[in-house]
Amino acid sequence: MATVEPRLYKGLQDYLPDQMAARQRIIDRVRAVCENHGYVPLGTPAMEYLDVLTGTGGEEATKQIFSVNTPEEELLGLRFDQTVPLARVVAQYATLPRPFRRYACSQVWRADKPEKGRFREFGQFDFDSVGIDGPAGELADVEIIALMCDAMRALEVGPFEVRYSSRAILGLLLKYAGVPDRLATKRVTRVATADGKEQFVTEDVWVEGTDVFRVLDKLEKVGLEKVRKELTTGYKPEPGDPIPGLGLSGEQVERIERFLAIKDKSRTVVLTKLRGLFEGLEGAAAEIDRVERISKRLYAIGYGDDCVTLDLSIARGLAYYTGPVFETVLLDAPQYGSVCSGGRYDDLVLRFHGERLPAVGASIGIDRLLAALTELGRIGLRKSIAQVLVTTMDESLLDEYLAMTFELRRAGVSTEIFLAKKGFGKQIKHADTQEIPLSIVCGSDEHARGVVTIKEMSAGKAISAQITDHAAWKQTRPGQTEVPRGEMVQAVKHLLGM
Amino acid sequence: MATVEPRLYKGLQDYLPDQMAARQRIIDRVRAVCENHGYVPLGTPAMEYLDVLTGTGGEEATKQIFSVNTPEEELLGLRFDQTVPLARVVAQYATLPRPFRRYACSQVWRADKPEKGRFREFGQFDFDSVGIDGPAGELADVEIIALMCDAMRALEVGPFEVRYSSRAILGLLLKYAGVPDRLATKRVTRVATADGKEQFVTEDVWVEGTDVFRVLDKLEKVGLEKVRKELTTGYKPEPGDPIPGLGLSGEQVERIERFLAIKDKSRTVVLTKLRGLFEGLEGAAAEIDRVERISKRLYAIGYGDDCVTLDLSIARGLAYYTGPVFETVLLDAPQYGSVCSGGRYDDLVLRFHGERLPAVGASIGIDRLLAALTELGRIGLRKSIAQVLVTTMDESLLDEYLAMTFELRRAGVSTEIFLAKKGFGKQIKHADTQEIPLSIVCGSDEHARGVVTIKEMSAGKAISAQITDHAAWKQTRPGQTEVPRGEMVQAVKHLLGM
Repeated sequence: MATVEPRLYKGLQDYLPDQMAARQRIIDRVRAVCENHGYVPLGTPAMEYLDVLTGTGGEEATKQIFSVNTPEEELLGLRFDQTVPLARVVAQYATLPRPFRRYACSQVWRADKPEKGRFREFGQFDFDSVGIDGPAGELADVEIIALMCDAMRALEVGPFEVRYSSRAILGLLLKYAGVPDRLATKRVTRVATADGKEQFVTEDVWVEGTDVFRVLDKLEKVGLEKVRKELTTGYKPEPGDPIPGLGLSGEQVERIERFLAIKDKSRTVVLTKLRGLFEGLEGAAAEIDRVERISKRLYAIGYGDDCVTLDLSIARGLAYYTGPVFETVLLDAPQYGSVCSGGRYDDLVLRFHGERLPAVGASIGIDRLLAALTELGRIGLRKSIAQVLVTTMDESLLDEYLAMTFELRRAGVSTEIFLAKKGFGKQIKHADTQEIPLSIVCGSDEHARGVVTIKEMSAGKAISAQITDHAAWKQTRPGQTEVPRGEMVQAVKHLLGM
Repeated sequence: MATVEPRLYKGLQDYLPDQMAARQRIIDRVRAVCENHGYVPLGTPAMEYLDVLTGTGGEEATKQIFSVNTPEEELLGLRFDQTVPLARVVAQYATLPRPFRRYACSQVWRADKPEKGRFREFGQFDFDSVGIDGPAGELADVEIIALMCDAMRALEVGPFEVRYSSRAILGLLLKYAGVPDRLATKRVTRVATADGKEQFVTEDVWVEGTDVFRVLDKLEKVGLEKVRKELTTGYKPEPGDPIPGLGLSGEQVERIERFLAIKDKSRTVVLTKLRGLFEGLEGAAAEIDRVERISKRLYAIGYGDDCVTLDLSIARGLAYYTGPVFETVLLDAPQYGSVCSGGRYDDLVLRFHGERLPAVGASIGIDRLLAALTELGRIGLRKSIAQVLVTTMDESLLDEYLAMTFELRRAGVSTEIFLAKKGFGKQIKHADTQEIPLSIVCGSDEHARGVVTIKEMSAGKAISAQITDHAAWKQTRPGQTEVPRGEMVQAVKHLLGM
């Protein structure tokens, strides 16, 4: 029989048990917070029609999609987010309540170039509130920010900041800085020449004034100096392809920088400074009022400057946001970027309806969050679920070991019985490497005397160190307790602090 | 803007919130049972290399697979089960413990022809124990059967039977009935003629003696009469294509029927009758002993004839089982077939290793189980998660409503605030249709008097009917309780029986 090499496709990852268990703990906790907020769960298939995924146009979006071949030769692809399927569901089922507030947790697929920490399949946990705008919609925005904070607290991530801003405020910035609707710039493309080498071709192109945000979005990643160059003349990074500039003037960039300089931990201070900067600018007062109402309501329900800040530099890459935008940074691990992001997107369902259905939501990148929490040591990666390993010393006692195992399980103790034919040393080593706290040992001698030995493994000693009252059972040796067979379950529960 | 029709591809389904919540309850409970048994979770990507999925050959298997197009033009497909990815993982990571006992719950995809209740994407919950055979392997078999029973009990499915048998016993049957290793039979194929009509072409072919099992596997579905015909001369169903017979003699079929006639709720009785039937048959005693040891061990750890039966007619369609095979039938809904099936498959990992890695496991069809439990009324389909709806009567009090909402949430009460701009009647109707037990009503009058009204909705009256001590709060009208604003949280928790 020819054998196949066991391997994974580029950019894909397995979640081995320690990681998978930690992932599930993350998901369980966020789910509990969503349900506390009254959100309902939704599940959609991995495959959608390509036109559902991409809308009417969008060659760029199609590139990211893994397409699937079907018996009927219809055009399908794997979802690349959970927002588009949500929009489809809301448009498809008239019976769903409006507002529709749902959470969803599943894998998504993107045919991007894989990089370190960037995978082609990854998990997202989304919560969105669809069908509300106007004054009540502002409360929905507040609710999403509060949910983001509650989720981070439930996850015990340590210090974090949910940062918000608004696309409207950025629109005002363009006005304030005098950036026109369209900008003349250049595009640099790398092409292959006839002799197999490469050269750069530069063309003149028009971009939207909002392209400024795409550049500002890089601020945290590349720093102010490079952003400044990209806004004006462009530059050539080493190594890398030339990056053309947007051609803004020094005066325009200076105004943008004055705006970006408004930074403060206090939302109230940011608002005051912003009012000062935009004083007299048409339409500014109303938009600043909207942003302020979010802030005031958050203060009122207990979300102070310690967890929610107003950060004017947030632009978000995605084009579809129409109102407030949100990001979440773990203050002890800012290098991971935003672990939970979102905003208001009032036009997405248009694709299906023609009818406008406003929505606001956010999404947690589960894999990125897990990576950050693991690095911070704020989530345990335990190899094993079992709390007890019943060792199998003597093949003639297998049935007795099985009985012990089921007694422990029925008492609510997660228990594994060692079933491979291996020596005692290997069995004990298994418990240690798999981080199982306790082992039960019962050889023919113990069996004859009607006792079992409970051995505390490395993982168990930590638990046991917190329990002072060991008097009830005789400690035969440090880390070993011999108990009558009939008291095994009770003793195990005691040693596990249950 | 051109609009896209919101729709799903043939054979795919959405899980709307009531179904999704019920599915999650099923998954949570099975997960708790698996963890109680010390199983660890494993996650693998949806996409695998095609040769990993199909092994070295298998044109037939490839037909079932949805293949995926990748930027690198490599051959990938979506997993059609969770067993093949498990085998890959075990072969790929030398660091995993042996035995490796894992559970996995995810979606799988099959490019079958969709039928009623048969989808192209569906959920499976698998638990498998890899790396153990011999005497200890028999304990692993017992553990899987016990886990299946524990899962069914945790799911409160009502009366059920886990039925087991063994491929070895079926092998003995072939010997007993005198069925040779190879059988001369016919194959009927429907082909298109030149003039566009269809005709049947019949060819002589050889099949394996084990093809008898494929026919026996249809017993529950088509009945004894048709199985008898297919074992002998074949028949022409109306409507349908001719089904060729396997050419067994009357005497051979009679012996098979004598075997199938051994049916009893008591495992001990079945074993006694089986020993009688196979008396003197070479190798029979040893195989019956193996099956009996499973039964005795199950009795010893408390799994009696009420939940586990020995059913000799079980053949299981899948070719890869090598030892015991398992099925689970809900006795009040047998029409759903087996909701949890599995067996021992000792050769699957061979595909990767060349090294043999024995395994045993079972899989719950989550969607089929949910459909059965829904029909039986044994699982609630509630549209809403929220226990309380805070209505928004007066726009000037929005901030007060928001405050109430967060007070309730912080007290652990799942709460929704009604945010669409709708009249009082529509808000109350929303609570009723979404099956939210309680509504909070606070108009300008209540607000001025410092009170709120708690209204019991249809879903709430059932809860409240079980609570007799309503004295603490003034009942203003049946189903309505007016309480001081400061006592709202306490009163809500009382009315919800929390």
